[in-house]
Amino acid sequence: MKFTQISDIGEFGLINRIKSNTKIINKETICGIGDDAAILNYSSGMHTLISTDMMVENIHFDLAYTPLKHLGYKAVVANVSDICAMNGVSKHIAISLAISSKYTVEAIDELYEGIWAACSQYQVDLVGGNITSSLHGMVIAATVTGIVQTGRAAMRGGAKQHDLICVTGDLGGAYVGLQILKREKSVFISNPDMQPELDDKEYVLQRQLKPEARNDIVSALLSNNILPTSMIDISDGLASELFHLCTSSGTGCSIYDQKIPMDPLMVQAAEELNLSAMTCALHGGEDYELLFTVSQSDYEKVQNVSDISVIGYMTSAAEGLKLITKANESIPLQAQGWVHF
Amino acid sequence: MKFTQISDIGEFGLINRIKSNTKIINKETICGIGDDAAILNYSSGMHTLISTDMMVENIHFDLAYTPLKHLGYKAVVANVSDICAMNGVSKHIAISLAISSKYTVEAIDELYEGIWAACSQYQVDLVGGNITSSLHGMVIAATVTGIVQTGRAAMRGGAKQHDLICVTGDLGGAYVGLQILKREKSVFISNPDMQPELDDKEYVLQRQLKPEARNDIVSALLSNNILPTSMIDISDGLASELFHLCTSSGTGCSIYDQKIPMDPLMVQAAEELNLSAMTCALHGGEDYELLFTVSQSDYEKVQNVSDISVIGYMTSAAEGLKLITKANESIPLQAQGWVHF
Repeated sequence: MKFTQISDIGEFGLINRIKSNTKIINKETICGIGDDAAILNYSSGMHTLISTDMMVENIHFDLAYTPLKHLGYKAVVANVSDICAMNGVSKHIAISLAISSKYTVEAIDELYEGIWAACSQYQVDLVGGNITSSLHGMVIAATVTGIVQTGRAAMRGGAKQHDLICVTGDLGGAYVGLQILKREKSVFISNPDMQPELDDKEYVLQRQLKPEARNDIVSALLSNNILPTSMIDISDGLASELFHLCTSSGTGCSIYDQKIPMDPLMVQAAEELNLSAMTCALHGGEDYELLFTVSQSDYEKVQNVSDISVIGYMTSAAEGLKLITKANESIPLQAQGWVHF
Repeated sequence: MKFTQISDIGEFGLINRIKSNTKIINKETICGIGDDAAILNYSSGMHTLISTDMMVENIHFDLAYTPLKHLGYKAVVANVSDICAMNGVSKHIAISLAISSKYTVEAIDELYEGIWAACSQYQVDLVGGNITSSLHGMVIAATVTGIVQTGRAAMRGGAKQHDLICVTGDLGGAYVGLQILKREKSVFISNPDMQPELDDKEYVLQRQLKPEARNDIVSALLSNNILPTSMIDISDGLASELFHLCTSSGTGCSIYDQKIPMDPLMVQAAEELNLSAMTCALHGGEDYELLFTVSQSDYEKVQNVSDISVIGYMTSAAEGLKLITKANESIPLQAQGWVHF
């Protein structure tokens, strides 16, 4: 296979290559890539949502075990998930890249294959961006915009005491998947001839390498006429996100360890790694599930939506954040989260 | 002066520090920094504009001669200028930062002093962002959103043959300012005791270090009922931007070297550096002036607006891009622009 240096086609050549392969889906897109700004037509009765995120090579991703296509997919998903967390629908994304000279045109093509796949999955139009050189590695900055019906945005600070705490899907898988990838990398470094041991690990590896955003839940909440009182997506771990909801809402919370959704394949993989599955579910990041609260009167409506677990309830701020065990012990919940600095 | 490590206050501490010092000006801002996404209320009858940009340390800026406050100011201006280039008004900005451990909290405060100053100058609300660590230096990614009345967006591709080519302000200053800063840096490296020679250089240094976006022109075009047929901002140099307008519009152009606006202080500083002032005006980037076309029937209306020069006219694509000299010679115009790769 022949590789093309980016300097062979230049910045404009690369942008044209991306532009000509980008499909526009949404009627709201008046003008996409290629002008000074994109032009969007968001209807009245809607609020505009905007969220931005940055991923830095060797801080947020390691290309030793992250295929570029998966990286591109995840960059879009992480942003779409932030719009889900506002109870909104993503419509447009702009992606800026800084890349060092080690990246070829074919590598960037692979990254965009993943970006386009996610855009298609989530019906988001890629409408802009910027490509520049860097001296070291890759930086991906994405900004997504979306819409939410006026009055339906779910913020972090709206939960009230006694509200039910709900979580979608299952937790901890992405973290355990990452630990397996790290283990395989170090095995490979010490012995490049070793075959990777990835049997039965597809589920957690997929949770790490190809996470999904919960657009389906946002749409189910709307069709079941449920308005969350507060919402956040789980990118830094359940405990850390609960801490954000409680701090913003001025509440405490109690959650039951027995209610925290865990996939048996995650539990099994965690045990093999000598990790506590519960710790992975409480503190592992990057699952991109939704954590939200509803008033108690919505309990039955929530039961109608599949893939939602009610894990506890909001309490007074004075009660703090608590994990209640099977033995009915109450343990203070620590917000660990990711420490970037 | 005591310096605080970012690890002392953490990512959330730093975000709270920024959030609590950010003032919200615009009625369109429903929710700013601190949730998963910002919530904006753009009125009907308006299109939404979005543009994004990325600046990488030692590629786009050198902290040896760029004060952090100026860098923050410029990061906002470069983005606001893209919205001006669509004939729109900027309303909101999100800024993501990747920073290595060499940056202290005080350094980030300085950067934000510049960001806030520009936000205040251009009536833009800082509504989001992201702060993460990097292994090497600083990356700033900014995304600005704005509005334009439906039907008034000025794109690159709308120019017609015979349209007049207009440029705002004067050109080449930012490039000459950069050359002076580079010269002073190398003088300083070879002899740290030398005093900088910056007499009479304030103008070009300010053009480089504290550029401004032409919101005033966008508003003058509206009040004088002028609708540009195409528009772009001059970030990569006049010749390069003309190339974009002509390529997108399917035209050629002829511009007169005598009409290209140059400030006497730029000409003088260029001569001292043994640079051709005309080359600086044609190919120097980062002036953030506007380049646009209007139909000939708007000639008188354009004359009413101060700080606009008519420098030539659009021709057929077959005629190519030409510079016409004082001696009436016609020279092909080369688009150099910045080469990032």
